[in-house]
Amino acid sequence: MNFMSPLPTPEVLRATFAPLHNDTFLRACLRQATAHTPLWLMRQAGRYLPEYRATRAKAGSFMGLATNRDYATEVTMQPLDRYPLDAAILFSDILTVPDAMGLGLSFALGEGPRFANPVRDEAAVARLEVPDMEKLRYVFDAVTSIRQALRQPDGRGRVPLIGFSGSPWTLACYMVEGAGSDDYRLVKTMLYARPDLMHRILEVNANAVAAYLNAQIDAGAQAVMVFDSWGGVLADGAFQTFSLAYTERVLAQLKRHGPEGQVIPRIVFTKGGGLWLQNMATLECDVLGLDWTVNLGAARAAVGGSSGTPGKALQGNIDPNVLFAPPAHIAAEVARVLASFGAPHQGAGAGPTHIFNLGHGISQHTPPEHVAALVEAVHTQSRLMRT
Amino acid sequence: MNFMSPLPTPEVLRATFAPLHNDTFLRACLRQATAHTPLWLMRQAGRYLPEYRATRAKAGSFMGLATNRDYATEVTMQPLDRYPLDAAILFSDILTVPDAMGLGLSFALGEGPRFANPVRDEAAVARLEVPDMEKLRYVFDAVTSIRQALRQPDGRGRVPLIGFSGSPWTLACYMVEGAGSDDYRLVKTMLYARPDLMHRILEVNANAVAAYLNAQIDAGAQAVMVFDSWGGVLADGAFQTFSLAYTERVLAQLKRHGPEGQVIPRIVFTKGGGLWLQNMATLECDVLGLDWTVNLGAARAAVGGSSGTPGKALQGNIDPNVLFAPPAHIAAEVARVLASFGAPHQGAGAGPTHIFNLGHGISQHTPPEHVAALVEAVHTQSRLMRT
Repeated sequence: MNFMSPLPTPEVLRATFAPLHNDTFLRACLRQATAHTPLWLMRQAGRYLPEYRATRAKAGSFMGLATNRDYATEVTMQPLDRYPLDAAILFSDILTVPDAMGLGLSFALGEGPRFANPVRDEAAVARLEVPDMEKLRYVFDAVTSIRQALRQPDGRGRVPLIGFSGSPWTLACYMVEGAGSDDYRLVKTMLYARPDLMHRILEVNANAVAAYLNAQIDAGAQAVMVFDSWGGVLADGAFQTFSLAYTERVLAQLKRHGPEGQVIPRIVFTKGGGLWLQNMATLECDVLGLDWTVNLGAARAAVGGSSGTPGKALQGNIDPNVLFAPPAHIAAEVARVLASFGAPHQGAGAGPTHIFNLGHGISQHTPPEHVAALVEAVHTQSRLMRT
Repeated sequence: MNFMSPLPTPEVLRATFAPLHNDTFLRACLRQATAHTPLWLMRQAGRYLPEYRATRAKAGSFMGLATNRDYATEVTMQPLDRYPLDAAILFSDILTVPDAMGLGLSFALGEGPRFANPVRDEAAVARLEVPDMEKLRYVFDAVTSIRQALRQPDGRGRVPLIGFSGSPWTLACYMVEGAGSDDYRLVKTMLYARPDLMHRILEVNANAVAAYLNAQIDAGAQAVMVFDSWGGVLADGAFQTFSLAYTERVLAQLKRHGPEGQVIPRIVFTKGGGLWLQNMATLECDVLGLDWTVNLGAARAAVGGSSGTPGKALQGNIDPNVLFAPPAHIAAEVARVLASFGAPHQGAGAGPTHIFNLGHGISQHTPPEHVAALVEAVHTQSRLMRT
């Protein structure tokens, strides 16, 4: 069964699209036709850009960067100033929420994130609660500040701003492991040995993530995305119970409309989740993110709907490693991905749509001029497909 | 299209099954009914066993262990002496073949494998060739020695012995990266930027792997398995071109019969390959290995065939992390996996069969007594399912 997106009224669609110069991303999220395939890149504000590294150096640390409204705004805008991307995404980290729960997040240089107080026993689980959202005020301030930076002289925005959070399961992975992991042994041991504790963590996380995303919507986020980065490490069965069900709880609590009366599209991305597309089709969301292992044409046939019928917009899915090849090869791979999705939906009403993206975050080693080649190829080729 | 396994003649089946006390594994590989679901465990001879660690200490190094026929025999037999497993698997490493190509394999303590001479440029690729199989004599000697160790006083074997190799793509990952990798940046850069070089590596690897497995068959291996451990990191399209096509080349060159006139079942395991089951159904092999993300019932419906029709036997797929839960939870998860595959094929002729295994190698942190609980649960429950 496919989740039936209630079709927004024409007034709501006007309130959604009109405040933007470039509304292609939001239109594609809502399965409306666009003149080209919109694109943005996961982790588009990041270490591959020298200007990002300069701001990061000024900030002193990753958390110094992420918690400062002005720095967060600066790095969010950097890729937009270089490339004609169709959306901005808040610069932040998926682990801000557990940090606000008191777990003590830090980033050692050259290593990933680490929690000083991981959640590994019954007492630690019992202590967990939805954090005071005031502790995350710096995130909401950054959202508002980025919206201001995106505003053009005529008062309209250049492109929409995406807010985001880690999924309840993905947050739980880090909270239990205390850091990244190869085998997820600690979190899966809890899952299989003490499912009651795991459910309690996930319930708190789902409520916290919903409050967090709603506050981002109130602050000005024009779409929200849930990153289920580690959903794909779960076994069939466990995924549905411990990841998908809690993503669903988040979605059920989200505001459908922003402060400007606009509809807020919701994106769910499960890395490694291609086998569970049919399960994800029932989620109360508008867009499904896909990694590069998924055939876009097959995904469209399975969950993309057709003209006039409900379905999910699809976002993805080129392998970020394609960006290490020369520009001509990048253009050829872009052509493959666009062709795999197939003929664009055109005309009025809802139909299958594609938002171009990477299948995962961009590598820090990416040559910035190769990103320009990718953006150019997507825009040019996808316009040609519509003529 | 499903690969049409030519049905072995009754004489060949007798030559295959009769030399064994426990032929359940081979029967299940050939989609024949068995009284219980056979099981073995990927990496069943390994660090979770104290007796393995003792032999490893005697040998001085991992390669000292793997290259010594007597030590390799000793550790191969250890898990069989503890648990009533239904198959033995050669103790070796997937990187012996590139080591024989002159890449200089070593294992630093607490780290993964490393090559002194990775293959990263045109000159290094041009130098690659199928190694002289005499350099791998230690592997074939181990196979023959293990067969002797498995022989009971009546001359028949306890259980069959599985030989194995890494897939051409998986070997190429290590050969180019020079070690394990998080992002496969170097090997994918070559794939996307210089596909000609990648194809040359894979062609050499496919011929080398085929010669290697054929020599294992000559030495006494009673089934062979190709580990495509890193196939799942490839994009859709790239998987078919750079992994599957070369696994196919290996299979096309394999001997169908061993020196005793028996048929040699061939198993292909692609970690993270669940999305490509339909592609793998066309492989000239008997068994497909599955990781824990795959629903066994769905896989059976897709590629397992039915009674009297062709299909693949399925091997897998419990999450190795289940073994960290208490025995009662392990038994419950075993029940879920067996139920997911569904009703066992019974009676004469070929039909859908299941070989129980983990979805990936066993963790070094596994409590050995939990493995006993797993084996007991699989045997007991799967017998009950047949009554």
